[in-house]
Amino acid sequence: MSRVETALEALGIALPEPPAPVAAYVPVRIAGSMAFVSGQVPMQGGVLQATGPVPSQVSPDAAADAARLCVINALAALKAALDGDLDRVEGIVRVGVFVASDAGFAGQPQVADGASQLLVEVLGTAGKHARAALGCIALPLGASVEVELIAALRDASN
Amino acid sequence: MSRVETALEALGIALPEPPAPVAAYVPVRIAGSMAFVSGQVPMQGGVLQATGPVPSQVSPDAAADAARLCVINALAALKAALDGDLDRVEGIVRVGVFVASDAGFAGQPQVADGASQLLVEVLGTAGKHARAALGCIALPLGASVEVELIAALRDASN
Amino acid sequence: MSRVETALEALGIALPEPPAPVAAYVPVRIAGSMAFVSGQVPMQGGVLQATGPVPSQVSPDAAADAARLCVINALAALKAALDGDLDRVEGIVRVGVFVASDAGFAGQPQVADGASQLLVEVLGTAGKHARAALGCIALPLGASVEVELIAALRDASN
Repeated sequence: MSRVETALEALGIALPEPPAPVAAYVPVRIAGSMAFVSGQVPMQGGVLQATGPVPSQVSPDAAADAARLCVINALAALKAALDGDLDRVEGIVRVGVFVASDAGFAGQPQVADGASQLLVEVLGTAGKHARAALGCIALPLGASVEVELIAALRDASN
Repeated sequence: MSRVETALEALGIALPEPPAPVAAYVPVRIAGSMAFVSGQVPMQGGVLQATGPVPSQVSPDAAADAARLCVINALAALKAALDGDLDRVEGIVRVGVFVASDAGFAGQPQVADGASQLLVEVLGTAGKHARAALGCIALPLGASVEVELIAALRDASN
Repeated sequence: MSRVETALEALGIALPEPPAPVAAYVPVRIAGSMAFVSGQVPMQGGVLQATGPVPSQVSPDAAADAARLCVINALAALKAALDGDLDRVEGIVRVGVFVASDAGFAGQPQVADGASQLLVEVLGTAGKHARAALGCIALPLGASVEVELIAALRDASN
């Protein structure tokens, strides 16, 4: 088991099967030593775990949990793209966290911390990343949160 | 004619003259082997083809057509930046699709497919990309859709 | 003093102390020859200089000034990440400008020009970048504008 998955297991997290590619895009695109992971929504067992804007329909804390779930889905997608070896992830470069927001909601950073903190719990210092967090009027499928990320990769031959 | 433009021609698409650079940014910025294309709106012949939020002012289908037009403009900008040789595009890495949305609209993926599908029609497997699709309360010039992308480039000497 | 800071000084701009890292992300993440700068808000002396949507609560001109301030904060963060040497910045690759917007506001480009123009004033042609500008229903801390960017770096040994 990779060190990354050992860290996930210590947190009680088992990676799901990654979602099948839909439409004309792919979950992960590798270019040089960077892996671009498509926007992930808080899907678990085929069901969105948080829908609608924050805070009128979903509390900031629940949205932070949803952001964490988006990261779990991103790691599952990365694992599949890296032939099962998450230890090829050298670190996380940039994370975009998009929060379905009511007008006037200013707590996107706390929601985004749900994503950022898990990456650091799992990857340590290498998980520290640049981040942009935004409030969106709506997100795909009605999700409350969407997370995309760029990971830096080690050479496959290492 | 490049293979990419041959594929465009087979789809009945002629690339327009790229829009002139406005203000202090440029349509395309190349860094190493990646070309970053600025956000494109569905402009055709100097006229925006879709304005206002989806679905109250523009249907999801019309917005998907607009997303396709954004990609045509992105390819025109790339062609100009690559001295006319679109075959230097090795593939598409990441696409951002921003959809002017009413509250509660959840169909950003279908709109974004208008962009993604054209890239795959034109570039084949190399056109498959990571993607993030968001709903925005408003977009530049009142556009219904905006698309930005990152392309991977072949070495110029190939 | 670096050439970049000399140019800033000529504009009457002194870089502030960069904001301390908060939560689990970092102000700047370097990957290869690219530096990813986290989303910056128009903070000055610990106080946000523009809050609420454009144009109902902040005029487009004031928002453009705020975008300029976001870039100053981004340059301060870059300086700290580059051990004080901003001349390691070879150029600016991509800028994302997120504008808190009322429904129907279409002037995100003018707001974003506040960011883009400063980058060109300071870095010259090397400051010209690809850009995406979006309208957001809300932004972190209630900011009117948020700017993130990617800079290309010279080799440290140059």
